[in-house]
Amino acid sequence: MAALGLPVPDGLILPADLVSEIATGAPVPDLGAFPGAPDILSIRSSPERSDWGGPTAILNIGLSDRETEKLAATIGAAPALDLYRRFIQSFGTGVAGLDPEDFENLYYDQLKLAGLDTHDGLDAGHLSDLVDASKDFYADEVGEPFPQDPHDQLRAAIRAMAEAWARPSARILRQARGADPEAGTALILQTMALGIGQGLSGSGLVQMVDADSGKAVVTGRFLPQSQGQDALMGVRTPHLITRASREAEGQSAPALEELAPDALTALQAADLKATEGLRDRFQFEFTLDRGQVWLLDAMPAKRSARGAVAIAVDLADRGIITREEAILRIDPRNLIQHLHPQIDPDARRDVFGTGLAASPGAATGRIVFSAEAALAMQAQGEAPILVRIETSPEDIRGMHAAVAVLTARGGMTSHAAVVARGLGLPCVVGASDIRLNLRKGVLTVADGRKFNEGAVVTIDGTRGEALMGAARMIQPELGGAYAKVMDWSDDIRTLGVRANADTPQDGRLARQFDVDGIGLCRTEHMFFEEDRIHVMRQMIMADDVDERRAALDRLQPIQRADFEELFAIMQGLPVVIRLLDPPLHEFLPHGHDEMQDLAEAMDLPVSQVTGRAEELREFNPMLGKRGVRLGITMPEIYEMQSRAIFEATLAVNRRADAPVVPEIMIPLVSAYREVEMIKSRIDAIAQEVQAQAGEALSYKLGVMVETPRAALRAGDLAASSAFLSFGTNDLTQMTYGLSRDDAGRFMRDYVNAGVFPEDPFHSLDVEGVGELLLLAANRGRAQNPDLVLGLCGEHGGDPASIRFCQVAGFDYVSCSPFRVPIARLAAAQATLLSRRDRGAADAPGLEPEARGVGSDSVPPTRSASGTG
Amino acid sequence: MAALGLPVPDGLILPADLVSEIATGAPVPDLGAFPGAPDILSIRSSPERSDWGGPTAILNIGLSDRETEKLAATIGAAPALDLYRRFIQSFGTGVAGLDPEDFENLYYDQLKLAGLDTHDGLDAGHLSDLVDASKDFYADEVGEPFPQDPHDQLRAAIRAMAEAWARPSARILRQARGADPEAGTALILQTMALGIGQGLSGSGLVQMVDADSGKAVVTGRFLPQSQGQDALMGVRTPHLITRASREAEGQSAPALEELAPDALTALQAADLKATEGLRDRFQFEFTLDRGQVWLLDAMPAKRSARGAVAIAVDLADRGIITREEAILRIDPRNLIQHLHPQIDPDARRDVFGTGLAASPGAATGRIVFSAEAALAMQAQGEAPILVRIETSPEDIRGMHAAVAVLTARGGMTSHAAVVARGLGLPCVVGASDIRLNLRKGVLTVADGRKFNEGAVVTIDGTRGEALMGAARMIQPELGGAYAKVMDWSDDIRTLGVRANADTPQDGRLARQFDVDGIGLCRTEHMFFEEDRIHVMRQMIMADDVDERRAALDRLQPIQRADFEELFAIMQGLPVVIRLLDPPLHEFLPHGHDEMQDLAEAMDLPVSQVTGRAEELREFNPMLGKRGVRLGITMPEIYEMQSRAIFEATLAVNRRADAPVVPEIMIPLVSAYREVEMIKSRIDAIAQEVQAQAGEALSYKLGVMVETPRAALRAGDLAASSAFLSFGTNDLTQMTYGLSRDDAGRFMRDYVNAGVFPEDPFHSLDVEGVGELLLLAANRGRAQNPDLVLGLCGEHGGDPASIRFCQVAGFDYVSCSPFRVPIARLAAAQATLLSRRDRGAADAPGLEPEARGVGSDSVPPTRSASGTG
Repeated sequence: MAALGLPVPDGLILPADLVSEIATGAPVPDLGAFPGAPDILSIRSSPERSDWGGPTAILNIGLSDRETEKLAATIGAAPALDLYRRFIQSFGTGVAGLDPEDFENLYYDQLKLAGLDTHDGLDAGHLSDLVDASKDFYADEVGEPFPQDPHDQLRAAIRAMAEAWARPSARILRQARGADPEAGTALILQTMALGIGQGLSGSGLVQMVDADSGKAVVTGRFLPQSQGQDALMGVRTPHLITRASREAEGQSAPALEELAPDALTALQAADLKATEGLRDRFQFEFTLDRGQVWLLDAMPAKRSARGAVAIAVDLADRGIITREEAILRIDPRNLIQHLHPQIDPDARRDVFGTGLAASPGAATGRIVFSAEAALAMQAQGEAPILVRIETSPEDIRGMHAAVAVLTARGGMTSHAAVVARGLGLPCVVGASDIRLNLRKGVLTVADGRKFNEGAVVTIDGTRGEALMGAARMIQPELGGAYAKVMDWSDDIRTLGVRANADTPQDGRLARQFDVDGIGLCRTEHMFFEEDRIHVMRQMIMADDVDERRAALDRLQPIQRADFEELFAIMQGLPVVIRLLDPPLHEFLPHGHDEMQDLAEAMDLPVSQVTGRAEELREFNPMLGKRGVRLGITMPEIYEMQSRAIFEATLAVNRRADAPVVPEIMIPLVSAYREVEMIKSRIDAIAQEVQAQAGEALSYKLGVMVETPRAALRAGDLAASSAFLSFGTNDLTQMTYGLSRDDAGRFMRDYVNAGVFPEDPFHSLDVEGVGELLLLAANRGRAQNPDLVLGLCGEHGGDPASIRFCQVAGFDYVSCSPFRVPIARLAAAQATLLSRRDRGAADAPGLEPEARGVGSDSVPPTRSASGTG
Repeated sequence: MAALGLPVPDGLILPADLVSEIATGAPVPDLGAFPGAPDILSIRSSPERSDWGGPTAILNIGLSDRETEKLAATIGAAPALDLYRRFIQSFGTGVAGLDPEDFENLYYDQLKLAGLDTHDGLDAGHLSDLVDASKDFYADEVGEPFPQDPHDQLRAAIRAMAEAWARPSARILRQARGADPEAGTALILQTMALGIGQGLSGSGLVQMVDADSGKAVVTGRFLPQSQGQDALMGVRTPHLITRASREAEGQSAPALEELAPDALTALQAADLKATEGLRDRFQFEFTLDRGQVWLLDAMPAKRSARGAVAIAVDLADRGIITREEAILRIDPRNLIQHLHPQIDPDARRDVFGTGLAASPGAATGRIVFSAEAALAMQAQGEAPILVRIETSPEDIRGMHAAVAVLTARGGMTSHAAVVARGLGLPCVVGASDIRLNLRKGVLTVADGRKFNEGAVVTIDGTRGEALMGAARMIQPELGGAYAKVMDWSDDIRTLGVRANADTPQDGRLARQFDVDGIGLCRTEHMFFEEDRIHVMRQMIMADDVDERRAALDRLQPIQRADFEELFAIMQGLPVVIRLLDPPLHEFLPHGHDEMQDLAEAMDLPVSQVTGRAEELREFNPMLGKRGVRLGITMPEIYEMQSRAIFEATLAVNRRADAPVVPEIMIPLVSAYREVEMIKSRIDAIAQEVQAQAGEALSYKLGVMVETPRAALRAGDLAASSAFLSFGTNDLTQMTYGLSRDDAGRFMRDYVNAGVFPEDPFHSLDVEGVGELLLLAANRGRAQNPDLVLGLCGEHGGDPASIRFCQVAGFDYVSCSPFRVPIARLAAAQATLLSRRDRGAADAPGLEPEARGVGSDSVPPTRSASGTG
């Protein structure tokens, strides 16, 4: 700040190394005379990051009986004595280790003695008595008189602050905040800008940018006759900075602008200089000393998630920072604020349930306990909030109707969480403090209150809370800064961002978020709609291949129509279609009543329905007969699906400009032969469809790598695959031996206890799952250099995981549409960080700033591929 | 055989290379005159292995009109003409490709014409007509007369046999039998030992060792006036070889011993010479030519599983082969025949159910449909066979009472299969062709027959079949050859063999099988007995830590007593104790009635029991809250267990000679911190117990590597672990993403279709799971060179997997007690094979004979460890 010519009091810096040495007993060097030779000083600690803590600043060093007298001549006796009193207290507590409360008691005793209520009435006599009392107390407690030599004072203060920094409690605090325990602090010695004395003196805080909009708005306060943190302490009511804000708040006390227009002008000039020179926006601590503005500290300006975006874009637009720098400064998660309504941070919150923040945003509505009730309520024009113990595919229609979802069970990747994120619905899962009696339609909360259907609540999916009643909201805003960030990100990033989109509706949504394609279309989701689920169930109830084929023949045109619509929407962008994945029992109803309904609808004895359900029941459905295992044992299912894909491709290509090249993906592969067998069937269907139509088509066939074995054998798989897409949800489950649906019950405990540094379903486990990804990528590419690599788990929307994909050389990530903006920005950041790391590697000695999952925290790719 | 001086007809060999060239068009070389210059020859193919197929031998080459006339002078007209007729047929079919049935028709026409029923009545006139008819037929079909020049005949026969070997159908057959499709065959040309003619001529088959006992017993048959396979064809009734066997079978026709005592003596001399010279026991094809014995072929003597053991041991005892060779010759699986009763191979089988051969041996008993009924039936002195859809831990007591188990569902590692193998009970699982109505107590089989409780059936766990009624049995035999094989194996092997043993009873059984220790004691199995399960359930129903602790305090002395008994039985041998592993819901009852009982017993509302069960219910229990996850979230459980272990150790050490050093194993680890946290708690308990007792104890702490992530992070884990034991059941499940309980439904299809080469739960998947094992072993040992490595999955009893463990440098395998003999032999073989491979590696050019999971089929260890 001094170098920029900002009005900073003169001073000097004791570097961190020297401070460390002093803490371990080295003598404090002779500092000689200060530049400008003032006689009253302050010392502040200055660590690398302000949130690492450190000892409180000591002000007014140099005051003694004699100096106070001299100062009284300049600023008056009472202010001088008050400063001396403050100094004795500050030195006594900060250096001699006395209890600040004792000093406070002396002060209040003096007020009482003087018969006064506030400080304002204390005159020089009172203050002189207080100084004497303070010195006496000091001498009694410390065993020697209060030091009168300014050099003694300074040396003692420096040593005390150095030792305080090195204290174990301070080290622990720093460590807890992410600092290296050995990190040091510099000490800044400055002449005091007194803030107390004649003329307009005082101290304050000012920020010239709005924390939410990033626009030029001046906020802050000023307290005459104060110094240090006084203006923040609330002893007296401070003045506001501008007249406009004073008028807006209806305050009568004049604003600083009115008291000293020059001071505001000086502060504005300083703000501009700091913005340009330090390339960010700041909040300043300032002191007025007889009308003269002094800046004591500049901290990054406070900003909300939206404000951070706006400020970064504004700085770039003004040419103060580059677009790349702007991109790197925005936390991608902050974009969520731009995409969903949020509860106003100042709103009153009556929280009745706490769970996992499964899908961001907030919504107010009326609770319902079933999908049917959600649909009925929606039909009445009301906003339903679906509350369930957990959701299942049968609830999907209800979730479409709902404005938010709350479940009592489930983790970050439970059905409710995944679907809600896909739909962009605010969602809280695993709210274990609520109890549901679905039969009676009652929701009971921890404190015993009960809600019936129709009660108004607000779901805060950003914080993972359920609130009683309607809360005040802030609406999303997609233009302006947000749009610029997206554009710049797309210019920078080299990693593709696709969306997970299961239906034509999802496809439309994905296009709104400017995706590069669809990275995961889960075909089974097409079968849950009312007209389809019945045919799907006929297929499952079929007693032989012929019956099954007959049902599949009825499904085929429906599926083909879905694909046609989806391809048309995507206009030639790549679309990865995953063949049927879930175990068949997921398509059957669960309760006995529903099974009876199904039996009646299909004209079967109910025992046949329950019998089939029993046959299909699995101990561990996640590890059961699903994915390619269905494809191998019931080949007619995948045959139907590939025929539908190919016919849809030809139909769309007849009328579209950009030809569709569908990418067909085989799920849950664990052995090479599985791919070989499915591939030969799909290739045969393609031949057949082309021959029937007399038209040619292109397609790609790839594998979803979800089992550790598929990762290990990626070299084999790559021989028959155009692409590998890592399904990191399942891969994480299998690598940890941990079901995402069941992990919710102890994941929070596990993360809190530090057993796992983070929920591995949330941010990719670089050390375990990540190694499998790298190993698979290397083995796959070694076998097939044209192999396209993607990631399509929930991690596709997580910035740290995206960074990993960039480092690993993947081609794209795929995530739910509402995460796409985050992924686009994170991908741009990953590209920039990789570029910087490469630069750093070229020029040794330059340390990359942000490591995160940097190139050195993942195993070197060469040795990983050597395992093959 | 010729080199040994055995009576083999003179001949020469066309090597395989030459035969291949002939097949692709090279000329047949001029063979000149035969040594000994006979004029009648045979050609046989001689591939590397006899089961690779190949063209039928062509006999009597050289016969023509003229040669037949000459031969008639020596052996008579009718025999000579019969040989000529045979030759024309053999040449016509084998060389000219004519249909053998047409020749048969000519023969039967001739019999009819002569008014005869059998061959015996055909005289020279009839046979001359038959020769003419055959030649005419040949000339008509081929378009040229039957060749009269012996050299033409020979060349044509050689070319035809060479081409037949190279035919695509022959190649496919060979490939199906495991041959290299390019494998060749030599052709053997020999002078004919006619077997037809004057004096005692004929052909036969003889074996001089008993196929079951390995004792010296002569079996076989002899057919006068026959050649080639005649004696096997059953045209006429053959004579037996020895008088003893003739008398035993009550045959009147004289035995060969009686017809030609010298011939038997010559055969016995030849047998001895072949045994010593070729170092095995053989079955011989022989021909008597005017009283002279000729050996035409020697095939390895037929032998049963037991016979193979007996023969190998006998050869070693006689000094013909070394003990090491004997060990390598025995298929370890053959030992099963020594350990369990088996159904007599000749017994009639009325199979009503087919499933997986889950646990070997056979037993007859009466069916029951519940554990209670099994106990009741056992109490009545009957042998119950437990039939269930599948078993659960609640059935264990019923399984103890049963003599065999049959389930309709489940795979090779289902609960029923694992427990039955542990108990040595014959068991068939996944018999999907039976249907159970448990309520009515009826078992319905595929053909509609119904069985009620009490019906007598036989379970064949060796073949995976359920038979109606009682089947004839062969009882096991543990002495003699079996005992020698075990002793020799223990002398040779370097790999430890431990047993999985959960209770003191299991420990006693394990000691009977001479184990090196216990590799896996699953402590939860101690809690299912009647006096314990109730306390366990109180622990689960506890509402807070204090209640839980109170229940655990009641369990602690029970568990300590179990450990004391087990340690005392094991007399200082290592015992690995796995801390509680299964999810808690496994200990709760399932049905509503049982829950009601529990609620009454615990004086709780039933809703509390069902509520807790619902709370604990998991989507994928395999991947749920179990293992170390219980240990971390409910630390008091593992604390109780370790205290019990340590107190039992001290108690046993007070009175035993060999001190116990318990090895405590933490299950389902996926992160290093889990080990660190549990280790610090266990170490603290150890300190406490030692301080309380004033005595010292030693113990080891290790990790069960069951998740892919634990394998990947083995370097970290090894830092705090004395041992790693690979739980390959779970590791296989997670690596494949395949639940062993659910895989049963499609595993057979998968293996039959070649998707998986073998059931990976049965034989270790070397390419996937095996890579993780190697990688973990290398990373672990790099971190901690003293690290002990074991394997304790079901694979511990599988020979191929044991070989893998030897190559990977593991210290021990652990398997169920009844697999221990197999593992001991397989470990000895693995040691020998590794020794041979090392020898081969030292002397390049020597190809190791048995590769299987040899050192080159697993990734080189150096590059695998480089991934760390």
